[in-house]
Amino acid sequence: MEECVFCRIINGKVPAEKVYEDDKVISFLDIMPANKGHCLVVPKKHTQNMMEMDDEDLAATIHAAKKIAKALSLSFGAGFNMVMNNGKEAGQVVGHSHVHIIPRFQKDRLRIKWSHLKYEGNEMKEYADKIKKFI
Amino acid sequence: MEECVFCRIINGKVPAEKVYEDDKVISFLDIMPANKGHCLVVPKKHTQNMMEMDDEDLAATIHAAKKIAKALSLSFGAGFNMVMNNGKEAGQVVGHSHVHIIPRFQKDRLRIKWSHLKYEGNEMKEYADKIKKFI
Repeated sequence: MEECVFCRIINGKVPAEKVYEDDKVISFLDIMPANKGHCLVVPKKHTQNMMEMDDEDLAATIHAAKKIAKALSLSFGAGFNMVMNNGKEAGQVVGHSHVHIIPRFQKDRLRIKWSHLKYEGNEMKEYADKIKKFI
Repeated sequence: MEECVFCRIINGKVPAEKVYEDDKVISFLDIMPANKGHCLVVPKKHTQNMMEMDDEDLAATIHAAKKIAKALSLSFGAGFNMVMNNGKEAGQVVGHSHVHIIPRFQKDRLRIKWSHLKYEGNEMKEYADKIKKFI
């Protein structure tokens, strides 16, 4: 897609600090990193989100993500978060499927965590039943 | 591993509200959900984190994650975050690889986002070079 910034990076029309590329996936540094070394793993085929990705692209993306994560760990001795935001409600900004690999350090100032809700009574089973209907 | 709570769920020794199971992966509701319907996708083979997972388990996990995400979207009309925390620095609590699938709604109170750092001068290329050495 001509107007998609990630497609333009993939096509070489927009520069990026690439760290990895194979026939299905590209990875480059996020220009607005949560921590320095923060990489994006981007399937070359344009899809809007994970649900549109086919099995082959999903597998290629997670295999590349592992390679990047391993390299981040070895480079910086860090743990890491893998995050994929799908949909505007979920904070997705660029409308081309992508996975964040964010190196994490003890005492860094990054907070990727959530408070916990509580299921009441039979509610947990009701939620599970609702989900199972669509699997 | 006998002492691992996710292994005990997989072996049926600890109850869980399952939504999906195949020969490599199980998925069940997180008992402390970020939003109701929050699922965990857990490979059956015990590994500590993503870097220890083999390619087959990685592919099975992401394919199951997509199934769950699709079902969450259809059940609740929601976007979703896929999050995998690897290492204590990254907020990993249970030491058995697992992926969170969290349904997201407009105006929910959940915040999975980060502030942005800035690369100075030649720093971005230096980071990329450091990572590429280990890929």
